Amino acid sequence: MKAIRTLAAVLALSAGGAHAEQIALVGGTIIAGTGSPPIERGVIVIDDKRIVAVGDRSAKIPAGARTIDVSGKFIIPGLMETGVYLVGDYEPADTLIRYEGRYDELAIEGAQMALKEGVTTLVGIWGPRDDLIKARTLIDEGAVPAARLYFSGNVVGYDGPMSVDFLGDDAGMAIETFEPAISRTFMDRVNKRFTQDVGSELLLLEPGEIRQRIHAYANSGVDFLALGLSAHRPWAHQFSVFAPTTQQLIVEEAHRAGRLVVGFSAFSSQAIDDAVKAGVDIIYNCDFSVGGAHSPQMVALLAKRQIPCAITPNTDSAEKHYRQQLRGTEPLLPFIDGMARNDQALIQAGAMTLMATNGALYSADTFATWQQRGVAMSDGQTLKVLGSSHFWWLQAAQEKGMAPMAALMAATRNVARAFRLDKDLGTLERGRLADLVVLDRNPLEGAENYRSISIVMKEGRIIDRDALPTQKLLTAPAR
Amino acid sequence: MKAIRTLAAVLALSAGGAHAEQIALVGGTIIAGTGSPPIERGVIVIDDKRIVAVGDRSAKIPAGARTIDVSGKFIIPGLMETGVYLVGDYEPADTLIRYEGRYDELAIEGAQMALKEGVTTLVGIWGPRDDLIKARTLIDEGAVPAARLYFSGNVVGYDGPMSVDFLGDDAGMAIETFEPAISRTFMDRVNKRFTQDVGSELLLLEPGEIRQRIHAYANSGVDFLALGLSAHRPWAHQFSVFAPTTQQLIVEEAHRAGRLVVGFSAFSSQAIDDAVKAGVDIIYNCDFSVGGAHSPQMVALLAKRQIPCAITPNTDSAEKHYRQQLRGTEPLLPFIDGMARNDQALIQAGAMTLMATNGALYSADTFATWQQRGVAMSDGQTLKVLGSSHFWWLQAAQEKGMAPMAALMAATRNVARAFRLDKDLGTLERGRLADLVVLDRNPLEGAENYRSISIVMKEGRIIDRDALPTQKLLTAPAR
Amino acid sequence: MKAIRTLAAVLALSAGGAHAEQIALVGGTIIAGTGSPPIERGVIVIDDKRIVAVGDRSAKIPAGARTIDVSGKFIIPGLMETGVYLVGDYEPADTLIRYEGRYDELAIEGAQMALKEGVTTLVGIWGPRDDLIKARTLIDEGAVPAARLYFSGNVVGYDGPMSVDFLGDDAGMAIETFEPAISRTFMDRVNKRFTQDVGSELLLLEPGEIRQRIHAYANSGVDFLALGLSAHRPWAHQFSVFAPTTQQLIVEEAHRAGRLVVGFSAFSSQAIDDAVKAGVDIIYNCDFSVGGAHSPQMVALLAKRQIPCAITPNTDSAEKHYRQQLRGTEPLLPFIDGMARNDQALIQAGAMTLMATNGALYSADTFATWQQRGVAMSDGQTLKVLGSSHFWWLQAAQEKGMAPMAALMAATRNVARAFRLDKDLGTLERGRLADLVVLDRNPLEGAENYRSISIVMKEGRIIDRDALPTQKLLTAPAR
Amino acid sequence: MKAIRTLAAVLALSAGGAHAEQIALVGGTIIAGTGSPPIERGVIVIDDKRIVAVGDRSAKIPAGARTIDVSGKFIIPGLMETGVYLVGDYEPADTLIRYEGRYDELAIEGAQMALKEGVTTLVGIWGPRDDLIKARTLIDEGAVPAARLYFSGNVVGYDGPMSVDFLGDDAGMAIETFEPAISRTFMDRVNKRFTQDVGSELLLLEPGEIRQRIHAYANSGVDFLALGLSAHRPWAHQFSVFAPTTQQLIVEEAHRAGRLVVGFSAFSSQAIDDAVKAGVDIIYNCDFSVGGAHSPQMVALLAKRQIPCAITPNTDSAEKHYRQQLRGTEPLLPFIDGMARNDQALIQAGAMTLMATNGALYSADTFATWQQRGVAMSDGQTLKVLGSSHFWWLQAAQEKGMAPMAALMAATRNVARAFRLDKDLGTLERGRLADLVVLDRNPLEGAENYRSISIVMKEGRIIDRDALPTQKLLTAPAR
Repeated sequence: MKAIRTLAAVLALSAGGAHAEQIALVGGTIIAGTGSPPIERGVIVIDDKRIVAVGDRSAKIPAGARTIDVSGKFIIPGLMETGVYLVGDYEPADTLIRYEGRYDELAIEGAQMALKEGVTTLVGIWGPRDDLIKARTLIDEGAVPAARLYFSGNVVGYDGPMSVDFLGDDAGMAIETFEPAISRTFMDRVNKRFTQDVGSELLLLEPGEIRQRIHAYANSGVDFLALGLSAHRPWAHQFSVFAPTTQQLIVEEAHRAGRLVVGFSAFSSQAIDDAVKAGVDIIYNCDFSVGGAHSPQMVALLAKRQIPCAITPNTDSAEKHYRQQLRGTEPLLPFIDGMARNDQALIQAGAMTLMATNGALYSADTFATWQQRGVAMSDGQTLKVLGSSHFWWLQAAQEKGMAPMAALMAATRNVARAFRLDKDLGTLERGRLADLVVLDRNPLEGAENYRSISIVMKEGRIIDRDALPTQKLLTAPAR
Repeated sequence: MKAIRTLAAVLALSAGGAHAEQIALVGGTIIAGTGSPPIERGVIVIDDKRIVAVGDRSAKIPAGARTIDVSGKFIIPGLMETGVYLVGDYEPADTLIRYEGRYDELAIEGAQMALKEGVTTLVGIWGPRDDLIKARTLIDEGAVPAARLYFSGNVVGYDGPMSVDFLGDDAGMAIETFEPAISRTFMDRVNKRFTQDVGSELLLLEPGEIRQRIHAYANSGVDFLALGLSAHRPWAHQFSVFAPTTQQLIVEEAHRAGRLVVGFSAFSSQAIDDAVKAGVDIIYNCDFSVGGAHSPQMVALLAKRQIPCAITPNTDSAEKHYRQQLRGTEPLLPFIDGMARNDQALIQAGAMTLMATNGALYSADTFATWQQRGVAMSDGQTLKVLGSSHFWWLQAAQEKGMAPMAALMAATRNVARAFRLDKDLGTLERGRLADLVVLDRNPLEGAENYRSISIVMKEGRIIDRDALPTQKLLTAPAR
Repeated sequence: MKAIRTLAAVLALSAGGAHAEQIALVGGTIIAGTGSPPIERGVIVIDDKRIVAVGDRSAKIPAGARTIDVSGKFIIPGLMETGVYLVGDYEPADTLIRYEGRYDELAIEGAQMALKEGVTTLVGIWGPRDDLIKARTLIDEGAVPAARLYFSGNVVGYDGPMSVDFLGDDAGMAIETFEPAISRTFMDRVNKRFTQDVGSELLLLEPGEIRQRIHAYANSGVDFLALGLSAHRPWAHQFSVFAPTTQQLIVEEAHRAGRLVVGFSAFSSQAIDDAVKAGVDIIYNCDFSVGGAHSPQMVALLAKRQIPCAITPNTDSAEKHYRQQLRGTEPLLPFIDGMARNDQALIQAGAMTLMATNGALYSADTFATWQQRGVAMSDGQTLKVLGSSHFWWLQAAQEKGMAPMAALMAATRNVARAFRLDKDLGTLERGRLADLVVLDRNPLEGAENYRSISIVMKEGRIIDRDALPTQKLLTAPAR
Repeated sequence: MKAIRTLAAVLALSAGGAHAEQIALVGGTIIAGTGSPPIERGVIVIDDKRIVAVGDRSAKIPAGARTIDVSGKFIIPGLMETGVYLVGDYEPADTLIRYEGRYDELAIEGAQMALKEGVTTLVGIWGPRDDLIKARTLIDEGAVPAARLYFSGNVVGYDGPMSVDFLGDDAGMAIETFEPAISRTFMDRVNKRFTQDVGSELLLLEPGEIRQRIHAYANSGVDFLALGLSAHRPWAHQFSVFAPTTQQLIVEEAHRAGRLVVGFSAFSSQAIDDAVKAGVDIIYNCDFSVGGAHSPQMVALLAKRQIPCAITPNTDSAEKHYRQQLRGTEPLLPFIDGMARNDQALIQAGAMTLMATNGALYSADTFATWQQRGVAMSDGQTLKVLGSSHFWWLQAAQEKGMAPMAALMAATRNVARAFRLDKDLGTLERGRLADLVVLDRNPLEGAENYRSISIVMKEGRIIDRDALPTQKLLTAPAR
């Protein structure tokens, strides 16, 4: 499998713009994300975009390098957050209406909020392809400072955000419910902007036509493919979107085009099983399971084969909140419980977990709506917000029993490896891109220490965190 | 595969009751349902419950036999109507509420309305097992005159009538919509009465547990098993209820218990394909296909392997009605069109079709409701009513191009063969049970002639048609 | 104003049936309901249906009288409960469907449950006239033992139970919400059974036509008229049903026909004001007020003019329940608070209050539904049930500050006076009908003592309480 | 009553900006709107903003005046369109969301579309006060070319556009229906922007507080007051918003502040009667009547007292459309019929009618929505659009029997008189503002001739019609 996108080409794009600089971070504890023990009083030398040396205090610092004393601090790789929704504020529909034509700006705002808090790479699942391409280009060209974007565009087989596939998961509401309030033409338009010919209509097509569409989509500028596993509609989570043979066909076609395939929304053990057999590369929502936790066999299989498993553990306080607020909505609570058990089992079994947060940005109006519905906690522990979503993930992973070093790797190296980006990203090693975070306190001594950010560097540039976001749309205060 | 139910045992039950009689029907045209040419001026001799002779005028008539002159008339086997809902009036819920505790009486009323119009055997798909057993027993014992019942009880994998699986197929409504109007406890109760441990909860169980439940259900008094193929919920018809491996397991377990398996609601070619591979014996709704008609390959497969295919063709005027009334409800019209094309293709390819009508009884209130919703035509061509549903089927089959003799066999012998009842039922041959209908006009010259009923005989007894139904519940006039 | 219904005629009807008996209750404390101090160790002598003597131990007991020793016990007048719904189980609609054609039996069952617990007279507001007439006749004739019935039939100006006037007061649901679940024809039918030409269609008629219909209705067998004051539809409680001039016209026409007029559902001070000006005789829901409690002036007016005010105070624990369960449903809580303040104010000001309970019978299914919705408390403190509704009222009145003797009179003499029945009912005085209850404990020492029933007597007959109800329809246990 | 707003002050504002010019329109037929016969080959002389001479060809034309030959053409006063919604595109809510903060621009766009087609004055009923003030100021100052605005802001007693008062008149939908799709915080915000302390909360306030609020609102920059007569909520149109005494109080307080009062939404004869008694100056929706047409007495009263009656007649083809599309929605059709009968009766009786159109601008999305719902005709005959709404009104008035001259006056002088603006507007007379339209064809020979616009002049300036609107928001083509 060839590399997903040629980073070289991207780097070439932006190389010309800024003056190449040499920087030496001196005296900090380096936690390289490789699993090796931290290097105390270490040195990292950066030349332009890349790390050229990592070592202890004996490492040689080039003359002319700008030296930054980080004694007493801790250096970790830039975090890689997956499972985010770069245009994810779709219900209520206020945001999609208000910013129609400007979705790229929303994606950039999210990527800035993440970068500000130490996330240098975002892996977006599900979003409007063309807007994301526009955002990615602006970021790659250095036109705006923001986390690097990787994304899949649509989830193959799912309809758009204003469809039964995304509305009303809990309450049985559907497109009809929205029609009095929102014009159908808008809903159709935004759905098409997301689905781009690989939506739920695929379910009705012949294999040949499906192949053709997957081929076209895989070559249309997306970084990888996301494939819908379980149905994403009310009451239908037990059903598989595609028959096993069709899944195989889609994976085959995506691989032929040089794209990895992420299996999305595995709501049952059966769905994971099918996905693995079909050759899916990475499984998202590995910890979801309608109707009881995964069997020990399933957990053992995932761990043994080291299949990348993206999980979204809840913090203990989020779980408590769900239990209190959502009693009565029966199908949800067993699901929350099953997720907790799956997370613990996967962690204990040593599965290769990836930090997947469901992070997104939400307007003040949306956030208020979900608080009124009893779902959102005010601090973002339940409705996850980019800029804090990774902190809560690391907190939750710790609470579910994940070792500190394992958690760091789930948020860095595992992601890089799963997406075949590990030559450039994920660890602090010679030759890697200089994405890193300097913390005041030791992240291995408590997940809350990830919040003690001193410096964020992306591709060798120190980020002016106070300047982010450069434009406040969704992050504007309540009107 | 052994016989589904021991007719012998049943017959033994009722033998004692009535005095055995010999009857000779003399002078009519015998259309035996075997595919052979009609016998003109023929003779059929019946001794007690069975046919003892079929022949031309030279046949010997026993002394003491009661001779009935049917010159100029036409004798056909008693019709076998499948795909009926013996307790099918569930939406609106008035009927299920009003007659709670008396569902067996509703089933009997339906079986009487059918018998009155020449249907001597009804094959019921989906219904409350224990009530149907009660009704079947009363009929088999001769306590009430009515069409013979065969049934499956619940459709394995489907929830009950007051669930998302049966409510609101068109409009996206669901259980929540009903809660203000009807008590949840009633809905739960009636759902359980239908599902009997083989409902949608199966989707969440382990294979071992599923086997156990199927085994128990197959041995609980049902005549055969109905297995849900495609999901029966709003927007989810494309999804399969069970994974292929689970389907196989269910079929295997049913066969082990000596029960045939009917695959129910095949909403796509894929679903039929899976069902055939899983070893399903008979396929219902073979002419349904969401998203376009079946491929020629699929049609050819069904025809070639002579897999029993139950179809529900619409009359031309019903189709016209749907086109006029239901425009705007987009998903429905292409479905109607696809069904028409499937019916024509299956007929032309010579598939082994069975007369499946969706017939049921409805209260005047229900009927009015569906007329207001633009679905029911006043004469029962769209919302099919037992007692006329078979007439409309025969009319529709003729309009879709089925040859007269083929249509008769689809309504008699094919059903008997598919359900392995052909030693006793389905044709006018020596040794068969004396289920027959005498018509004034030739049914091979026009489907409307099936309405020209002169005599209905079931198991050798001439039915007093005017006395049916013996109790008017659903057939009572509007209040 | 002439007497509402000729009790004499009624009594004549049943007189023949049973042998006239003389009974003497001896030794109990008599609380006559007149406001006078209790008579200790008193004697009450009953001859056939009436009280012939009330006095202390010196009273003369006729020879041949059956003497019952009630020493240490307490004798009060039979309770008169108003504001009850004799066919009140309408949402969910299960009950109205299940018992269509048998509503009279439901009314009798309610009247039996009430009688069993000491209520000898029920004043029903709102119900299907013809069914209530049938029930009343059976009771009056002595065919079934049950509390005596007075009723108004429909509330003039309101539509039936399956209409926007009665469905969905809290949640904005309406007739459309019910249509998928229940047939429209049934809903229309039951609505007409209640409205009887004096429903909401009156709002669109000319004065002359309104007069005509009121005249006809007032003479159709109802005991008095109930007139809708405030609109009884979602979000419209602030609006008046009829313009002031139309109200006057209706009252005038009812009075001309010799019928009292009860003003029903006064949701605002304005509505009470209008009703008083229009000459309405009795005001129900005097303690309701959308948007804040009544002004002191309004309370003073009602008290000063001693206008009969039917109130429905909540117990403290019911209020607590509402506060806990219904937070979030904003319009309801201020309403509950306002009602509490109104009750306290009216009691303190010495208004002439009547015990109005909203009591009705509900099926187990209905009760479960309202418990699931968080409204019904299991013991009937919120969804009031005949047989206990009066106990909760007396409890609530005590908690809201009503003096024990005043509470007893609100439940007896005040009702009799308001409805001009005080020559026969409401007190234990010579000449009155012998409706009485013997209690083991003193009701003036705690409202809970009303539950300590020893004997219930109606019209001189001791009731076999264990035999009630004689038929269990709504009081049958959960299926 | 003093003048509503000092036009002098307004004129002074803009006088400085543009160079004063003299113009003479020569040779056209002048239809002055006074009811006098047209002047053929007439002359109108304009000096700066006002008409200084109107006469036949003998009139003296000042030297230096710019002379425009309009021979063969027809000159009428600038049209005055009332009953328009300057921010009226509220359902579906797309527009209110998309343009939050820019409602003034929407109002200006509407006023430009109207001006472009000959409407020089718009009288807006119901809208967000502060946005309308902003728009009016920009127009009055000459910053943007657009029709002159008069408006009332909120309708006193009504809640905002995202409330039960405006949503779902036909289908019983309400605020709850919108909550999944739109954030509650947005809905609350937009409602407050419209209601400005004189919304439905008034219904719960004491008289003193109501007076205070009306006083404040009347002095807050609105041109007149609109008072809700009938309730504007589903199923409640029969009810009056305010009790008669409260209506009087509001009118009194408005008059005290020098503001006329328009009675809005009179859904019944009773409502008109109350309004007239309360001293309301102008009645809108005079032709609405739920439950049958107005009585002859009512029509006679309105005509005799020449109370200004704003009516909204439908064209014959719109009525036909309603009949075809909306059958089944029972309450609507009798309403349409009643309106037609009321319009004809009022016209025949010689009532003082005003051209009220319900005109507004709608986005392409909104328009498509209402077409899908079967309400909007593509040419704007049913969902009325500013820029054509007045043409359809004139067409409908002609079809309902209004004489051509009467129709012109209903669209000009009557409006000016009703709103006490007739010293400046409404006719082509010396001293009036030079608002006029030059038509190619005679409007008295057919209403369609109002479309044959040659010149639109407002306050002496010829409008560059091609430049309107200056910004396309709602008038942008479908995306």
